[in-house]
Amino acid sequence: MIVAMQDTATEQQIQQVVEHLIRMGFSVHRTTGERQTVLAAVGARVDFDTRNLEVLSGVEHVHRISAPYKLAGRSFRPEGTIIEFSNGVQIGGDQVVVMAGPCSVESREQLFTVAEQVSKAGARVLRGGAFKPRSSPYSFQGMGLEGLKLLREVGDHFNLLVISEVMEIAQIEVMLPYIDIFQVGARNMQNFNLLRDLGKVKKPVLLKRGIAATLEELLLSAEYIMAGGNYDVILCERGIRTFETYTRNTLDVSAIPIIKKLSHLPMTSDPSHGTGLRDKVPPMARASLAAGADALLIEVHHDPDNALSDGAQSLYPEQFSKLMDELRMIAPAVGRRISART
Amino acid sequence: MIVAMQDTATEQQIQQVVEHLIRMGFSVHRTTGERQTVLAAVGARVDFDTRNLEVLSGVEHVHRISAPYKLAGRSFRPEGTIIEFSNGVQIGGDQVVVMAGPCSVESREQLFTVAEQVSKAGARVLRGGAFKPRSSPYSFQGMGLEGLKLLREVGDHFNLLVISEVMEIAQIEVMLPYIDIFQVGARNMQNFNLLRDLGKVKKPVLLKRGIAATLEELLLSAEYIMAGGNYDVILCERGIRTFETYTRNTLDVSAIPIIKKLSHLPMTSDPSHGTGLRDKVPPMARASLAAGADALLIEVHHDPDNALSDGAQSLYPEQFSKLMDELRMIAPAVGRRISART
Amino acid sequence: MIVAMQDTATEQQIQQVVEHLIRMGFSVHRTTGERQTVLAAVGARVDFDTRNLEVLSGVEHVHRISAPYKLAGRSFRPEGTIIEFSNGVQIGGDQVVVMAGPCSVESREQLFTVAEQVSKAGARVLRGGAFKPRSSPYSFQGMGLEGLKLLREVGDHFNLLVISEVMEIAQIEVMLPYIDIFQVGARNMQNFNLLRDLGKVKKPVLLKRGIAATLEELLLSAEYIMAGGNYDVILCERGIRTFETYTRNTLDVSAIPIIKKLSHLPMTSDPSHGTGLRDKVPPMARASLAAGADALLIEVHHDPDNALSDGAQSLYPEQFSKLMDELRMIAPAVGRRISART
Amino acid sequence: MIVAMQDTATEQQIQQVVEHLIRMGFSVHRTTGERQTVLAAVGARVDFDTRNLEVLSGVEHVHRISAPYKLAGRSFRPEGTIIEFSNGVQIGGDQVVVMAGPCSVESREQLFTVAEQVSKAGARVLRGGAFKPRSSPYSFQGMGLEGLKLLREVGDHFNLLVISEVMEIAQIEVMLPYIDIFQVGARNMQNFNLLRDLGKVKKPVLLKRGIAATLEELLLSAEYIMAGGNYDVILCERGIRTFETYTRNTLDVSAIPIIKKLSHLPMTSDPSHGTGLRDKVPPMARASLAAGADALLIEVHHDPDNALSDGAQSLYPEQFSKLMDELRMIAPAVGRRISART
Repeated sequence: MIVAMQDTATEQQIQQVVEHLIRMGFSVHRTTGERQTVLAAVGARVDFDTRNLEVLSGVEHVHRISAPYKLAGRSFRPEGTIIEFSNGVQIGGDQVVVMAGPCSVESREQLFTVAEQVSKAGARVLRGGAFKPRSSPYSFQGMGLEGLKLLREVGDHFNLLVISEVMEIAQIEVMLPYIDIFQVGARNMQNFNLLRDLGKVKKPVLLKRGIAATLEELLLSAEYIMAGGNYDVILCERGIRTFETYTRNTLDVSAIPIIKKLSHLPMTSDPSHGTGLRDKVPPMARASLAAGADALLIEVHHDPDNALSDGAQSLYPEQFSKLMDELRMIAPAVGRRISART
Repeated sequence: MIVAMQDTATEQQIQQVVEHLIRMGFSVHRTTGERQTVLAAVGARVDFDTRNLEVLSGVEHVHRISAPYKLAGRSFRPEGTIIEFSNGVQIGGDQVVVMAGPCSVESREQLFTVAEQVSKAGARVLRGGAFKPRSSPYSFQGMGLEGLKLLREVGDHFNLLVISEVMEIAQIEVMLPYIDIFQVGARNMQNFNLLRDLGKVKKPVLLKRGIAATLEELLLSAEYIMAGGNYDVILCERGIRTFETYTRNTLDVSAIPIIKKLSHLPMTSDPSHGTGLRDKVPPMARASLAAGADALLIEVHHDPDNALSDGAQSLYPEQFSKLMDELRMIAPAVGRRISART
Repeated sequence: MIVAMQDTATEQQIQQVVEHLIRMGFSVHRTTGERQTVLAAVGARVDFDTRNLEVLSGVEHVHRISAPYKLAGRSFRPEGTIIEFSNGVQIGGDQVVVMAGPCSVESREQLFTVAEQVSKAGARVLRGGAFKPRSSPYSFQGMGLEGLKLLREVGDHFNLLVISEVMEIAQIEVMLPYIDIFQVGARNMQNFNLLRDLGKVKKPVLLKRGIAATLEELLLSAEYIMAGGNYDVILCERGIRTFETYTRNTLDVSAIPIIKKLSHLPMTSDPSHGTGLRDKVPPMARASLAAGADALLIEVHHDPDNALSDGAQSLYPEQFSKLMDELRMIAPAVGRRISART
Repeated sequence: MIVAMQDTATEQQIQQVVEHLIRMGFSVHRTTGERQTVLAAVGARVDFDTRNLEVLSGVEHVHRISAPYKLAGRSFRPEGTIIEFSNGVQIGGDQVVVMAGPCSVESREQLFTVAEQVSKAGARVLRGGAFKPRSSPYSFQGMGLEGLKLLREVGDHFNLLVISEVMEIAQIEVMLPYIDIFQVGARNMQNFNLLRDLGKVKKPVLLKRGIAATLEELLLSAEYIMAGGNYDVILCERGIRTFETYTRNTLDVSAIPIIKKLSHLPMTSDPSHGTGLRDKVPPMARASLAAGADALLIEVHHDPDNALSDGAQSLYPEQFSKLMDELRMIAPAVGRRISART
């Protein structure tokens, strides 16, 4: 940690800062330059709050040198993390995996119909919400346990892995037998109790970036899960809040190459939530792949006009199938491949 | 709801949109202008997702006319809501209430010391965290139930009301006997399950704005609580995320007069979290009062350098006392008053 | 324009708004609903300031229905605009055009070296700054007229078109004989005097989005140029300011498909300025192409470590050449093609 | 400047960075820690682009220690800058100065009417635009030179100083005889050629923050003017662009105490442009004063409904007069005073 003193700082102020640092367990190296004194403090706890120094008199500013995450950092596994599943699917390897399905599981018929179509088009993971956050008390609340059972049954039928969102700690145990990947939504990215408990689970966690979260904060949340022992974390960009109002959120495509540099964890993209509008999903899915995404989450519904949630951002099956063909053409340009149609 | 068609929209496209609206339960008025056709749709459900229309072909854009909240809107109670407490304190009335205390309850001694000081300076509500969100697994986790008991005991001793943060549904029952106001933090502003359950409680709820939440979204979250029957909701600005990095968040002072116009609910400000830096708290507390805030939340600690959390944003007791004097001078300029020193 | 009255609005307030609208030259249609009165005002001037209505008593909010631009709107030329140049290059057609070159023209040798390399790799337009905005009074100020002459000479030598930035009105005449496309930088996107004068010029203008500009504002600025008679406007995304600080700006890739829907004008992307970091340029260039960009602006320098400006975001020639090969692989996936190596 | 190397950096990479730094004129101190190597580079030019180091292999990140401004920094004049005018008005001293008047100078009668009213209420500076940026080619363009003459005449008549916006270099000479303070608008905050020329002028410059400018960038622009020899720079917060859409911009009140700490320059606030809505101007003017502003810019019009520009954000004279009374009550709370009614 570097503490730059104001050029008007008195010797007494400098000494107070040095003593404060030593009291906090740092060792301190002092450099007095032409204009100002700079203190380098070594040995801090990862969770030290630098503001405690910023408010001391004579301090100009404080800068943390080490990234506040370690397990999630690239240097922890320079070769990159590949997550392997029992059916041979790998996330983080040569293959770019497409996870597709409806926003919510609505019925057996719906799920079978959609799953068959996305499977044929080359998806390898079936997505679908069983527990739905309710932005209105009058909206559809999700099928719950029954939805999970359907996901498992339909996934097995089409040899698809299954991903679904976990919204609170109590749901972890309930979901465990039915799903292959836990999804943590943007609103829960900093629900640290939930992250802590997912750190003890033996299944991969796909962690979505909050709409106001920096990439450093996303990696800190991943660190939280990994600190519990679960290293199979998959990160996901799904749009940030900006001043532009045409789309609900702005899909930050540049997050993909940035995370790939900063971290060894697989990085994915959700263009459906990231744009919120069906006709923007294919271009942003293609862009995400071209920027280096390891997997894509795409909402597909056989009858989006009558979907119980988020129909406006769900692709029609034929749109999805066309998109998959385009993705197959792009993949080799980034040294990747995508499952063939079946 | 207004649906503006593109000026190139065909008659067939217009008919499809009309039929879609009717199928969704709207009645439709059509106006054909010089340049374009506009459809006015009446009778929508509050939770209708306008994107379902935006993706139809020929649609230029869709605009919702009614505010999506009703109970939280100003016209529901044009005279404004005043929340009364048993000890005579009112929030939303002539008096501007100051809620002060440490970030976390740390010990009996700490709480007594701070409570005495803030009480003498004129605070009427004691704040203090018993359950702490843990951004690091190694940080202080809060005193839990013991902290709640201390808050009640110390609050009663100094005739202060007590406010503390509720972080999950299971804590509601635990906290109920000990606190006077439930505080919902910024990260939980859209934790709809928690809001729903707080709607059934018979104690006021102070709801903080999320760092990426629009004011409309804040009012929708208040609506969620009120829909459950609990109309005693207090809103709170505590900083939004912007491109400026000098402070952690940017306290949006203009949210205060805007909310006072849009809603009848009391509107408050938390300059401690809104700036994160001690020396910025007094100016932003004064600014919030001058802009019309009904109450202020201010962190105070008798020994901030050794506080277990957020010491950098806690005022020293003498700073708080001086700030209270300044606030007392400002209050008459906005037709308000603040409790005298005791 | 739609004026929604508050549900508590009195008949007198409604009449005042109606009279105000008529005085401003609108014709007014009134609809009285169950909850509120809504006024539809027809015939407004494009530049009417809706806030003049928002501040009237009894008004809930005001919503403009027509887009505030006409010439730049998709329906003005539903088939899309293709800009043709004398050497056969087209922007907006099947071919995706790559504009490449150094940030600043530094010397004859530098420009020949870079131009030869980008030309061989398949670029069709040579970019280079002759007038440089000076963020520091001590920095390199550009070669001025001499730089323009070099651009023309080198462009002609390699059969490349030439683009360079115009920074003030006085430069238009100076640049006209030497360049094929005027570039307007992000900081000048709302320099309306400059836009007005570029509207009278007979050469295409590439207009970059300001870092805090909405897409509607970008189209309004394009409208400004077109209103002067110059319809050959090319739009360009180059990054917006968000809370994320890892990159200087966040390249808003979704702006590409959005603009392609709202407007008939060619839409391009500048991943060099949009990321500011060399290693992020190739992924974001690929992403922009995959999202539908009509052209790409890419900074290339044969010796970026010693570039006089923006070396950190300039590709090495071999990186550029590799990127062009990747782009050639991606183009067919979006029904486009890119010039072959020469 | 601090260069933190990746913990995986090789000795060769470290040596390359050291050599690069030395070549750039730095002297380098190397510290090898448990986890990583950190290089401290001393002696950089103020305008060194740190990205040139960030792109070198093995570099984790680069952090500039010295603020990139010197003349504008607090330590240059710890006691603060007070700008004195011939008529005894001081900006930056005990007195908080209110600058008021119409958005545009429209006519002799208008200016006399408004000036008389704001003068009586206690304003000491008359504001009014003579050159207007034209967001629409059909809008009012300002009275130009005639407007400047009117400002001078009316200002002298009521013993008011005069401030007006300068929009391009050519206007400086034209304005010089008529105005007391040059105003630089938000869109020109980084028009470095204009700033350079204002640095040679012998009259104060009020510099507004751009809507996407950080406070550091604002101070850098002030530095630009000061580097030319003109130290009488007044800074002004007028709203930044955020995700909140209720107001055009979000007035960042916290910028006031932050700038007062970082810089010795007077800091002011423009709540009229910062909110854009008349009824939000008084609360935000009060808030700005309470947060420590040295002056306020407020738009006032005797007939805002018929103002030729920005009528919606102009106060009625009686509103302004009431606001001045409120400000007079608040000023003592921050150790300041405001001119009495005359």
